[in-house]
Amino acid sequence: MSDRTNTPSSTRTIIRRLPELASHDPAALHAIVDESYVCHIAFSSGDDTHCIPTAHWRSGNYIYIHGSNGSRMIKALSGGTNASVAITLIDGLVLAKAAFNHTMNYRSAVIYGQFETVEGNEEKLLAFDVLMDKIAKGRKDEVRRGNPKELAATTLLRLPLDEAAVKISNTSPTDKDDDVDLPVWTGILPLATTRKPPICSGSGQDQTIPDYARRWADC
Amino acid sequence: MSDRTNTPSSTRTIIRRLPELASHDPAALHAIVDESYVCHIAFSSGDDTHCIPTAHWRSGNYIYIHGSNGSRMIKALSGGTNASVAITLIDGLVLAKAAFNHTMNYRSAVIYGQFETVEGNEEKLLAFDVLMDKIAKGRKDEVRRGNPKELAATTLLRLPLDEAAVKISNTSPTDKDDDVDLPVWTGILPLATTRKPPICSGSGQDQTIPDYARRWADC
Repeated sequence: MSDRTNTPSSTRTIIRRLPELASHDPAALHAIVDESYVCHIAFSSGDDTHCIPTAHWRSGNYIYIHGSNGSRMIKALSGGTNASVAITLIDGLVLAKAAFNHTMNYRSAVIYGQFETVEGNEEKLLAFDVLMDKIAKGRKDEVRRGNPKELAATTLLRLPLDEAAVKISNTSPTDKDDDVDLPVWTGILPLATTRKPPICSGSGQDQTIPDYARRWADC
Repeated sequence: MSDRTNTPSSTRTIIRRLPELASHDPAALHAIVDESYVCHIAFSSGDDTHCIPTAHWRSGNYIYIHGSNGSRMIKALSGGTNASVAITLIDGLVLAKAAFNHTMNYRSAVIYGQFETVEGNEEKLLAFDVLMDKIAKGRKDEVRRGNPKELAATTLLRLPLDEAAVKISNTSPTDKDDDVDLPVWTGILPLATTRKPPICSGSGQDQTIPDYARRWADC
């Protein structure tokens, strides 16, 4: 996606299954990364291949993750191993007349590359500010920011969003000619990630509830 | 998990980060697999490591996936390559006084092993019936089941749920002693996957809407 054109960026990101669902629009990729809270990261370590979920956020053309310096995944990824990061948002189940024509509506991104370590306390703090703002707009100005000890114990990694495959399925059921008259209901059973009313923690009964918390479930 | 005891099943599934969140109860693992519609599968192919989302379902102690015989992932997995399957359900954002004490509530499972191919049309049909019943209880008796041509074009794979790491985080914010008096709101911003009202497809206006569709959004 580095050239911002409508062509895939590598042989790994050519979508062979249902290529008509492929999107090479950076805005679509950014929207998927921004809307989701967790990605899954594939990497190899010795003879094993792992798939590990972790929180992520985006700043510019990078996806960021972080973790304890001692974590197995952080050690492998900061060593420059090849990684693949996948994010999937499910929008609904698509029910057709025939079992084999059922499908899902979804938005997914698979990103390839090698993570790089972000060094320097000031640069790390700025990146963590972006994570705070993703969690709740404005919160970065309220919380206690990381101190030198916390920053030293935490590795911050980022991966450019250059080599990515985005697939978006937003369809109605499709039936084969021989199936269309079968007496079977067809339609979409929609799914969505939704926000529920905020829960104040124990000591917070007499706190002022900030706007981002009061409005959380309205969005 | 194969011995159904409260011990991890392999060195790969010992949870080193926040081990107090580990669960070795098969019922917890089954609940995560059953509640989710999509898993992410890590596997290596040549020099590349991939992370690919796909639909899954469970029958007994196996997680099932399927795909076109020609798919890159299906070819690699049916060849017996090592795989890791991760499923993550996000329940909320946990907001503490300090940036570095923020966390998430989630339920996750990471399963290791090698997929095996399910052969035989009758066995495949029975497994796909379970998928139909996961999508909507009772629907397997309405839809047209797969025909020999569809079954022959589709590979069905399953992985035993024996070597799995389950992590469940369901906490309130935790603050360090030095932070508890800071004037910062703390609490949980809950997230949930929810069902929205069903959408009948074009030709379905005069159809009878089955119970599973009418009640979809009530659950």
